[in-house]
Amino acid sequence: MSGKIILHHAAPSRSSTALFMIEEIGAPYELDVLDLQKEEQYRPEYLAINPMGKVPAIEHEGQVITEAGAICAYLADAFPAANLAPLPGDPLRGLYFRWMFFQGSCLEPAIIDHVLKREPGRRGMMPYGTYETTVDTLEKAIEKGPWFLGERYSAADVYVGSAIAWGLQFKLLPERETFKRYVARLNERPARQRAMAIDQKLMAAAKPA
Amino acid sequence: MSGKIILHHAAPSRSSTALFMIEEIGAPYELDVLDLQKEEQYRPEYLAINPMGKVPAIEHEGQVITEAGAICAYLADAFPAANLAPLPGDPLRGLYFRWMFFQGSCLEPAIIDHVLKREPGRRGMMPYGTYETTVDTLEKAIEKGPWFLGERYSAADVYVGSAIAWGLQFKLLPERETFKRYVARLNERPARQRAMAIDQKLMAAAKPA
Repeated sequence: MSGKIILHHAAPSRSSTALFMIEEIGAPYELDVLDLQKEEQYRPEYLAINPMGKVPAIEHEGQVITEAGAICAYLADAFPAANLAPLPGDPLRGLYFRWMFFQGSCLEPAIIDHVLKREPGRRGMMPYGTYETTVDTLEKAIEKGPWFLGERYSAADVYVGSAIAWGLQFKLLPERETFKRYVARLNERPARQRAMAIDQKLMAAAKPA
Repeated sequence: MSGKIILHHAAPSRSSTALFMIEEIGAPYELDVLDLQKEEQYRPEYLAINPMGKVPAIEHEGQVITEAGAICAYLADAFPAANLAPLPGDPLRGLYFRWMFFQGSCLEPAIIDHVLKREPGRRGMMPYGTYETTVDTLEKAIEKGPWFLGERYSAADVYVGSAIAWGLQFKLLPERETFKRYVARLNERPARQRAMAIDQKLMAAAKPA
């Protein structure tokens, strides 16, 4: 698939995951950098793109796609040459989706409730059950590794892996060896290093003199 | 794709969405019904399938897939004859993923915080921003309709639509005309009627005499 991608981005934010993904597929793109401190994400021009008032959003071939998970899933399928998803019909496709959806449905809400020290609801009602179960399930998923799909690196590592790295950095996940080793592997990806360098530069530029 | 599907199910629960989806694709399946009151979802045999201790989970062609969103996305791609997803390369594919991921990342956490009357965190930190924004964005997505992808019915309607129906039923979403009309359309789907009839039967059988 061709056509330049526009990434509506802010650093640091959830859209760093989308930047990492775009660097993985190696497609041409341009950044539209929003200043979240100035609340540019709530300006009418941007709300027309994403009424949720949050980054990331991408534009590609006339489509607007929001939600980091959707962006990763979409790009992985749209740029099959990058080999970032088992395509429909591949026996690993189900496992791939399992972890792609685990992130938004279980991991992120569990981490947020944990960091806000909120009393969770009844286990059966919470989409993630308990924080402990979520963390253990996550660890089990990558214990054998090296990736979520075993030997095969995929957009699930870009998406869920970014959350693990973020969770370790801010001590929202326990400092288990499995997580630390996994993030060390993820940090070796040249695409991740390029994305992090771009974010560092943006953050440095944003600092008041 | 062939091969019988096993759905690990309980009624009523999140797995009703997976049952609806399986009825839509028209593939052969069997139910493994768990009694959540008896906590059968935490038995070791079931935790070996889904360590999160929750339904739904499906088994298909040797794979285990958990998370209702993942199950819907997987089945939509695996059974293309049912025409429940724009496939890779289709211009609607991005929009389709946008709403598939919106459910777990925004809608469900927003509804749960709302029903638990929990103080939300800082807007930029919450994956869904605010409950009001989430509800308005959802309404805008189906305002034109009749479906999330316009004229095209898809697994996004099965998955996110089930959440809208559930949200209206338990008054977790405001009773807006857009939502009511949308659910009325969804309830006309024969697959949904079949799934609801199965669940009614299961619930009746579970009631103590």
